[in-house]
Amino acid sequence: MYAKAHIHSMAPYIPGFQPEAEQQVIKLNSNENPYPPSPDVRKALAGFDYALLRRYPNATAEPVREVLAEIYGVNRNQVFCGNGSDEIISLLFKAFLEEGSTIALPYPTYSLYRTAADIHRVHCEFVPTRDDFSIDTEALLAVPSQAIILVNPNAPTGLLVSVDVIEELAGRYNGLLIVDEAYIDFADGEASALRLIGRCPNLLILRTLSKSYSLCGIRFGYAFADEALIEALDKCKDSYNVSMLTQTIAAAALRDRSYFDETVGRIRASRGSLGGSLRRLGFAVPDSETNFLLCTPPAGSGLSARRITEWLAERHVYIRHFDSPLLEDKIRISIGTEEENSKLLTLLEDLLNRPEDETVPSGD
Amino acid sequence: MYAKAHIHSMAPYIPGFQPEAEQQVIKLNSNENPYPPSPDVRKALAGFDYALLRRYPNATAEPVREVLAEIYGVNRNQVFCGNGSDEIISLLFKAFLEEGSTIALPYPTYSLYRTAADIHRVHCEFVPTRDDFSIDTEALLAVPSQAIILVNPNAPTGLLVSVDVIEELAGRYNGLLIVDEAYIDFADGEASALRLIGRCPNLLILRTLSKSYSLCGIRFGYAFADEALIEALDKCKDSYNVSMLTQTIAAAALRDRSYFDETVGRIRASRGSLGGSLRRLGFAVPDSETNFLLCTPPAGSGLSARRITEWLAERHVYIRHFDSPLLEDKIRISIGTEEENSKLLTLLEDLLNRPEDETVPSGD
Repeated sequence: MYAKAHIHSMAPYIPGFQPEAEQQVIKLNSNENPYPPSPDVRKALAGFDYALLRRYPNATAEPVREVLAEIYGVNRNQVFCGNGSDEIISLLFKAFLEEGSTIALPYPTYSLYRTAADIHRVHCEFVPTRDDFSIDTEALLAVPSQAIILVNPNAPTGLLVSVDVIEELAGRYNGLLIVDEAYIDFADGEASALRLIGRCPNLLILRTLSKSYSLCGIRFGYAFADEALIEALDKCKDSYNVSMLTQTIAAAALRDRSYFDETVGRIRASRGSLGGSLRRLGFAVPDSETNFLLCTPPAGSGLSARRITEWLAERHVYIRHFDSPLLEDKIRISIGTEEENSKLLTLLEDLLNRPEDETVPSGD
Repeated sequence: MYAKAHIHSMAPYIPGFQPEAEQQVIKLNSNENPYPPSPDVRKALAGFDYALLRRYPNATAEPVREVLAEIYGVNRNQVFCGNGSDEIISLLFKAFLEEGSTIALPYPTYSLYRTAADIHRVHCEFVPTRDDFSIDTEALLAVPSQAIILVNPNAPTGLLVSVDVIEELAGRYNGLLIVDEAYIDFADGEASALRLIGRCPNLLILRTLSKSYSLCGIRFGYAFADEALIEALDKCKDSYNVSMLTQTIAAAALRDRSYFDETVGRIRASRGSLGGSLRRLGFAVPDSETNFLLCTPPAGSGLSARRITEWLAERHVYIRHFDSPLLEDKIRISIGTEEENSKLLTLLEDLLNRPEDETVPSGD
């Protein structure tokens, strides 16, 4: 056996099920955006000279860092670009977290952090959320740790910690405060910790174009932090980590502010109406600041979260069920188009209204 | 300071200079391919539906693994795909090499391995090549090490170790034998260690589409090894490490065998004629099995390798000079198009024929 022992024995991260691109399904299981990317992405692709691909891309994705700095009002040296925020998460461990160190994070949260910590032999100290899934930042602070990781708004709960609380946390904490804002663009008001950059030297904000920019396919993540933290990421990254097409597309999508505003607005509106409809069907649906809803099936329905997930999958409608503590009785539904959401609601209504013995697999 | 101390103090990897894409220059400094990628890449891009980018790519680049398995005659589970071979190099350390362990590698070789080892606090034991740059595999074996890394053909020397020697090395060695075949497609005859896959459980072969497929820009590297080694890489990789467009383009380029054969053939032919012309100018040019030549300037010319490199750069012709032991008196020239090679030769002839006091910066 040549693999390190802990790699050999560890469980791999399991991403949400991905049907083949050709399949016509309703896919509400991976928090993808239901709308296509900006039409400027199509134009950028159409105008791209394939012959350029013989050359290496810009090693630091400089042009995209400049666009990000301009749009988000930070300095160029406070921005990092990665091959998805996945790569940046991995780099956080490489650059900042020694083997045997401890990170504190709420439970539940995005499960990839646990996998990344396992790979790097960093210990995860999970601090349970309160009964309403709100995050106990005092309890997080009380853990002796080298970093605190907050997904904000949190996944899969959809709840937000305010910037004021994050600022206080950063000020009182000696370690690195990592705030993963993958879903921040769907939150209400001025929810981002971005305005703390330049004031909190231990704060690192992660972002992605996967969700609000509808660009899961290109793998583009970015980070905001003080220059010293960005420098460390730059030293640890692969020499050419972001492909040329990804850089081209990212810059085009970021510049199209009106399309971004419009599609994010539509998803937020759909989130409100889908949540309302689910509540009318008897689901418990806490408010969400993201592009998904974490719901508990109607108590009296006799239908488990797992059963609902499987029943929908048999009908080519994919939602997510987590077989984990505090979550096994819940389903997570990514916000789809109005049409997809209606189809989902019709199916759920159908399922809830039929006698229990009819809820057998459809066989198709 | 939040960065790990060794990251804070380490020197970053310095890639070859990259002029802006728009600039009309002759770029023979990064071993890029002078020809565009396969026309099928253009078609694949033109036919790509940008709306698909809202979805995650295939997490394991399955369709490309299948193409690679088919073309190279291995099993699907003996193939790994990465975001450039850079990512795979980084994963080798994550999956197989403990902090404090030792890797043995010849000197000189591709300098990125040293940087990756530094990041992961793995010790590099460099075994000097012989005077003719040939690799002393017995001396490599004699180093107590957890892995041996052979770039084959080696960079920046261009020399090849035969498959028989690699097979013997793998058999006699207890650690992991990593053979980086970035340039193997330019070598003569059946030079690849690919036929050892399935027979040598400690052998891992790295490949890239950057050089022979002219696709530096998409970032696509691949590896061949026994299933157990591939599994460990899969566990350590980022969950969606290869972008959707990279997967689409990689598959298209790999399938176009005739374009591949034709362009590789042209580069090999140009390598022969460029080498001959350089020798006629007085350069010492050992035979190369790659798409570059490592040359020593004419002894009596009074021109240093650095001076030649700078003089050419002033004329927008970029070659590579390494300020490192055994290499500082040499220049590395990537094979360009016939036109680029002629332009380079004309300039070199011009430089060699002018009186020494005229070799001042051109000022443009």
